[in-house]
This record gives sequence, C-alpha cells and structure tokens, in this order.
Amino acid sequence: MRFVTFEHDGVARAGVIAKAGRRRPGDYVIDGAHPLRPAPLRDLKPTMQDWIGYGLQALSVALRAEPPADSCLLPLADVKLLAPLPDPGKIVGAAFNYRDGLAQINRAPSPQPVIFIKSASTIIGPADVIKIDPDNRITYEAELAVIIGKQALKISRQDVADYVCGYAIFNDVSVTNYVKQDGGFVRGKNQRTSGPLGPWIVSVDDISDPHDLAVTLDADGIRLQDSNTSQMLFRIDELIEYISAQMPLEPGDIIATGTPAGVAATHEPPAWLAPGMSLSICIDHLGELRNQVEKECPHDR
Amino acid sequence: MRFVTFEHDGVARAGVIAKAGRRRPGDYVIDGAHPLRPAPLRDLKPTMQDWIGYGLQALSVALRAEPPADSCLLPLADVKLLAPLPDPGKIVGAAFNYRDGLAQINRAPSPQPVIFIKSASTIIGPADVIKIDPDNRITYEAELAVIIGKQALKISRQDVADYVCGYAIFNDVSVTNYVKQDGGFVRGKNQRTSGPLGPWIVSVDDISDPHDLAVTLDADGIRLQDSNTSQMLFRIDELIEYISAQMPLEPGDIIATGTPAGVAATHEPPAWLAPGMSLSICIDHLGELRNQVEKECPHDR
Repeated sequence: MRFVTFEHDGVARAGVIAKAGRRRPGDYVIDGAHPLRPAPLRDLKPTMQDWIGYGLQALSVALRAEPPADSCLLPLADVKLLAPLPDPGKIVGAAFNYRDGLAQINRAPSPQPVIFIKSASTIIGPADVIKIDPDNRITYEAELAVIIGKQALKISRQDVADYVCGYAIFNDVSVTNYVKQDGGFVRGKNQRTSGPLGPWIVSVDDISDPHDLAVTLDADGIRLQDSNTSQMLFRIDELIEYISAQMPLEPGDIIATGTPAGVAATHEPPAWLAPGMSLSICIDHLGELRNQVEKECPHDR
Repeated sequence: MRFVTFEHDGVARAGVIAKAGRRRPGDYVIDGAHPLRPAPLRDLKPTMQDWIGYGLQALSVALRAEPPADSCLLPLADVKLLAPLPDPGKIVGAAFNYRDGLAQINRAPSPQPVIFIKSASTIIGPADVIKIDPDNRITYEAELAVIIGKQALKISRQDVADYVCGYAIFNDVSVTNYVKQDGGFVRGKNQRTSGPLGPWIVSVDDISDPHDLAVTLDADGIRLQDSNTSQMLFRIDELIEYISAQMPLEPGDIIATGTPAGVAATHEPPAWLAPGMSLSICIDHLGELRNQVEKECPHDR
C-alpha cells in the first residue's frame, strides 16, 4: 500500500492511499487521525514513525482486510502531500553505486560500498521547492530510497528482508563543486532542501523485485536519466550488510541507494539545476516525484 | 543549571540537578515527570528535546525563582543518569580544530573548518560502556559539546549567542584506521557506542566563557589530554557561522568542537582503547564523564 504524510486544515498526519472504488471515484486518503479510522491505526499515533514502528506490511495486511468507513476518507486532491517520512533518523547514502554511472565516468567499481551520511534536515516533500544558489554547480540524482523498519546491527545479507519496510523515490540533490573541493560529502550532500522524498512510501509487500525497477528523471520534459535498479553495483542486501556492520540502522532511517548514469555533469552542456527548472523522477510502482527549482533568497530562513 | 536525563523505576525522563540545601544534604534531581514539579515544567513533556524547545536558560531562571517541593525530588544516588540528550537530531563534528593538536602532528591549520556528521545512534550515557573491536586502533577524544537551542540557518558569528542553549562533555571515540583508510569520517566516527555524552547539559547562563575551560582526559588514572578550550582554532561562533551556512542546525543538534592534543596515536606506546580501560573526561564547570571500555561481543545486537 501507499503510505503518505499529508496536511489538511493546517494539521500534518499520516495516511494511506485508498484506491478508487465503484462508489468513490478518484483517489482518497485514509485519514490516520480520524476517530473512525480502521483498526489497528486507532492504537497508533498518526505519524509515519509510529506506523513504521508497528510495521507497514502488517498495516497493509490489516487495512486490506478492513475497508475504511467513508467518513475517514479525504479526497487526495484536497490534501497537501508532505514528505512521507518528514523526520527520518538519518539518511545513509551510497555513492558510485550504479554500473552505468561508473562506466560513464570511467571509474572502476570500488571493492566495498562508498557511503556517506546526509542529515534528515535536508528532507522536503513532493509539493516543496528545491532552493539553490545558482553560483554552485548542483545536480539532481534520481534514487531508490529504502526505508528501514527495524533496528539492524550486523545483519548478514541473507537476513535483510525483515529489516526493510518500504521504498520511495529520493532525489539526492548534490553540490558537485563542494564534493570535488572537499574530497568528501558533508557540504555537497547537506544543503537545505537537497533531499526531496515522496510522493509516498510503498510497503515491501507491493514490490516483488526492488532490483528490477525502471528509474527515469526528466528536467523540463527532457529525459536526463534513464536506467534500472538492476544496474546497482552493491545491491540492497549488500548495502544493509555493510552499513549495519558499521553503525546501527534504526526504524525510519533511509538508505539512498545511489543514482544511475546521467547526472548533470555528464550532459553537454551540463544540466546543472537552474531556477525555474521542473524535475520529475519516476520509478516503477513508486509513482512520480516532481519538484520545482528556485533561486534561494539570500535571507531565506 | 545542570539538566539531566535519568532512569528511575525503569522509566526515563528529564530532570534538573538541585543543589544540596540545609534541609536536604546531598544532591537531588527534580523529577521532570512528577505531578508536583515546578512550573513551567508542568506544561512540558519530561524530555530534554521538549525542554530545549522551551529554552534551557528560561527554565533555569524560572527554577531559580521557584524552589521545588520536596516531594518531586529524588536523591541523585538513586537514579541512573542517561545521556542528557539521548536522541539529538545530528552531531556535527569539527576535525583538526585545536592548535595544540595540530602542532603535535605538524599539520597546518585549514583555512576553514573541517566538519563531519556523526549519527545520533552513536550516543551513549555516563553509565554506559564503550564497546570496541580490539582489532581496530581506536582513540578517545575529549571534546566540548555545544547544544543548539534554536533553528540556525545562515547565522553570522555576531548572532550565535541566541542559538546555543548549553554545553556538555563529549567523547568523540574514533577508529583511527578507518579514518586513514577511508580518507573520510563516516566509518571512523560512526561505530556503535562511540558517542559518550554527559553527565549533564549545563545551561548557557552558567558558563561565562566557553573558550576558557580546562579539558583533561585520564585513562586508568594517567593523564593523556590536558588542554583548554582557548586552544580552539575555529571558535564556537565561527563554527556555527560556517556550519549554518551549509545546513540548518536544529534545536537539539550537537556541535562537537574538536579535541586537543594527546589523542591515542600521539603517545608512546599509543594509548589505543583496550578492554578494561576506564576513561574520565573533565571540563571546567561541566563535571566529569566516566566510561568503561569493553570488548564488543561478536553477537552484540
């Protein structure tokens, strides 16, 4: 199922997309804060973190068994979707993790994953704007985000299935000149608004093979990335094994699994983010994540 | 005042150290969850994050004006102190930030701060054990931790005073062989239990000059670091200016301001952490942070 965080009447809460039924044309959201919401949502706080703690797959099963009362449905068109997980614990990113991307820049695959930490304060939602300083050279990066459902420490690759609760689209917006200048990822990956996530988290039970999903990114209607998660160098199970050997992954953490070929620098001329640009990322079964790019106002707070 | 998070009867909550009075010898903790706790604690959840949101200095002023009822006091000896801020948003660390440390390794000061992100899942408290893999070369790092009290984005150094709510002792335990091998800080700074913090947060109103505090670290009674925060290369105001230009600092984030001379590799023989070692860090006005070192069990989860 598709799990969202949304705002309605000025209040943010978690919800679940309910498909159009015969009596209710159009897409609806089960309001996770409504008094008549289906069990087991009634025992949970209407936050994605709480739902992840309970288990998105378990919720998915329970919600399929109990159709929601009409009164707790809101038309999708009437709500504002926020980042489905507005405040993850941490984002662990994998760099240089797509074979087609490595080939494009003539870089040899590294023997082990190259990881970095991106702070949760970079997260924005599908209705939000990517704010940039046009003096920087900034690239989009279409990525499959893996949402961790359970504390994972020293997990071997055979056991990772229990620890993933869902998937989403992530745009790992990166300042290329900072990454080059610093020889590291802290500044380049942590600018404000550099982590668009959404439009929803799809629970694991709906994705049969996360390594066979088409990934595309268009800027102003021009296709700039066109690949498939099958191109990942280190697969999700290897990433979780490697990362969880280093540090605990907690429920609500995100692994950004890397971006395929076609980042801004590889185009001629380079496709650096520019004010007014409209980005659209699509991943099979995960929907479409659209964000506008704007110039950051010098006094933006 | 000294703000703590503690466990009593199996429940964790925030508290404030109350000094010994005539009628109550010994140190006590105001129980932040007690029904008769002083205003304005009554309107807050008993968590450090909530108290920081309200303002530690404002709480300090209010608590000085209203002596607590005896009934809401617990003897300090009867509670277990946890990390005062068990779940910070993020920890931003400064590397190579003490002049005496740079001189000791013959490294030139960098023109701007060298920062890294340490995940909040590294945090442990004053009663917890640092678990190590003895095959690694691991060092202690005594540091002054700055606790952020208010969202800070693009703050100029003149204005930082408003954004700091307190200080604490931090031990930025680091795996030296990973830092060398990776040329970066992700693995080296993010091992589990590598972030001892405590024993309390001292609110800003109690620290007249954070750049004139003696810092010492002893291992098994032998002094290995002996310096003063006056040795910082980039001072707190410069660090906040630099970091907040890159990424927002949020209430409850921590800046680890770097460690002085005397890290493990600089001793002969090197003073790498070893099972059984007892570490004690003291910083003027901030108390003493003691942690035992133990071998990590291969199946520790």
